[in-house]
Amino acid sequence: MTDHREQENSVQERAGQQKTEQERAARVAACNELIAEAAALALGWFHRRSELSRDSKSGPQDLVSQADREVEEMIRGRLTSLFPSDAILGEEQGVTTGQSGWKWIVDPIDGTASFLHGLRGWSVSIGLSHDGTIIAGWIADPAGGRTYSATLGGGAWCDSNRLQVSGARCFSDGIMAIGSGAPAQIGSLVADLLSRGGGFQRNGSAALSLAHVAAGHYIGFYEPLLSPWDCAAGLLMVEEAGGRAQPHPMTRSAPVLTATPAMFEPMREWVAKATAGP
Amino acid sequence: MTDHREQENSVQERAGQQKTEQERAARVAACNELIAEAAALALGWFHRRSELSRDSKSGPQDLVSQADREVEEMIRGRLTSLFPSDAILGEEQGVTTGQSGWKWIVDPIDGTASFLHGLRGWSVSIGLSHDGTIIAGWIADPAGGRTYSATLGGGAWCDSNRLQVSGARCFSDGIMAIGSGAPAQIGSLVADLLSRGGGFQRNGSAALSLAHVAAGHYIGFYEPLLSPWDCAAGLLMVEEAGGRAQPHPMTRSAPVLTATPAMFEPMREWVAKATAGP
Repeated sequence: MTDHREQENSVQERAGQQKTEQERAARVAACNELIAEAAALALGWFHRRSELSRDSKSGPQDLVSQADREVEEMIRGRLTSLFPSDAILGEEQGVTTGQSGWKWIVDPIDGTASFLHGLRGWSVSIGLSHDGTIIAGWIADPAGGRTYSATLGGGAWCDSNRLQVSGARCFSDGIMAIGSGAPAQIGSLVADLLSRGGGFQRNGSAALSLAHVAAGHYIGFYEPLLSPWDCAAGLLMVEEAGGRAQPHPMTRSAPVLTATPAMFEPMREWVAKATAGP
Repeated sequence: MTDHREQENSVQERAGQQKTEQERAARVAACNELIAEAAALALGWFHRRSELSRDSKSGPQDLVSQADREVEEMIRGRLTSLFPSDAILGEEQGVTTGQSGWKWIVDPIDGTASFLHGLRGWSVSIGLSHDGTIIAGWIADPAGGRTYSATLGGGAWCDSNRLQVSGARCFSDGIMAIGSGAPAQIGSLVADLLSRGGGFQRNGSAALSLAHVAAGHYIGFYEPLLSPWDCAAGLLMVEEAGGRAQPHPMTRSAPVLTATPAMFEPMREWVAKATAGP
């Protein structure tokens, strides 16, 4: 009787795993196509950006345009039609709840200021979670003609090239990417970084910066406050490329710190020191 | 007698102007081709950057590689063969004096750290001066597939598109590009900029940043200390695109500040305040 029940449980468990794996595979395949379409739609608007109407949100550098809205609508429409019981969280249109356990986390254009001013530092980011765990992520860099992607346990990729974080072991071994989410901290962060022989860049897109950490271009990325849609795809990507990332709750804005394995602890100390005040 | 002498002077002057114009035209035509070849050579190395040997110069972020040296050698070789009596000032190989009054100012790869880490923020910059006045400038953005150029009085161009600086009238109207040449100042500069509703980026190449100011992508660029080869082409480009630039001596390192016409004075005040100390 016990044996029989165990067997039954095991059969049910395997069937459940198989179902989840089939659902996962269907979603990854669909999004591999969807990200390319979203990138093409956004790139079209980038080339015609002078025609776009724009508004500011939380502040003058926090912009949204017709392009952000249109790209999000296209992505939401496609996902809703393919997977009607999935949840969707998008930067511009908020949450649609679901019942499947699957959730899409969408930033139609991350780096809207770059986008509207004609700079290349913007991206389209889509993350996919199951029961709260990020399972896959896509970051399109349309102006650079590249698409980054990662799946849990399946590695991180730029088109067909497998990604590996940098082997940097000290600040002077590479370039750090930083955000500007905390005006009061950023000055001491930058000054302290430069005093350690480090260098910094800021391209205007958190998602693209995370993809560049995964690709080994940056040795790390720090932003004091990021929304889930800015980093859902990118954090998985860095970890799948062998890097380390501070856990993000994915339910609210939180700090993001990612780095090469050797640089994660030194960067935590750098952030703690620079943000502790004088 | 006076009339005759005046006529003679006028004839000599016209002949001199005509000679200078012919010399100018020959140099501009030659460099229009040369910049494309230099960009292709540099881009080839960018794709094979893992093979490059590299050294640091003044500090860990001030890098030079075999690619910098090879691109400068190619440019110098070509210019010397075409215009043997012109002077050449290059970042990696210093000054070659000349007798013609024409001088080439060459940065084979501006943004070597970006280049070696696989980031797109690097460029090839060539400036041309005559008797101390910058006459023409070229900035190739090989990773972006674009070439920027300008001639004195002839406007600034990105490939075949005429450039015009942004119409920004306040800090919140756009993004400022900054360098990191002065660790002690950069913290207060950034914090103050953000408090004014401004935004900043840093792409790792001063020359490319100046081209982006000319193209209207950035509303200005500030770097506390730049060498002539970093900015000879870019400063002319910004002015030819309708922007303003603080004069640079071109004989030594000096601060560089460029902006849209409406933002030049506000930016001077911002720099003065942020660099005055507490």
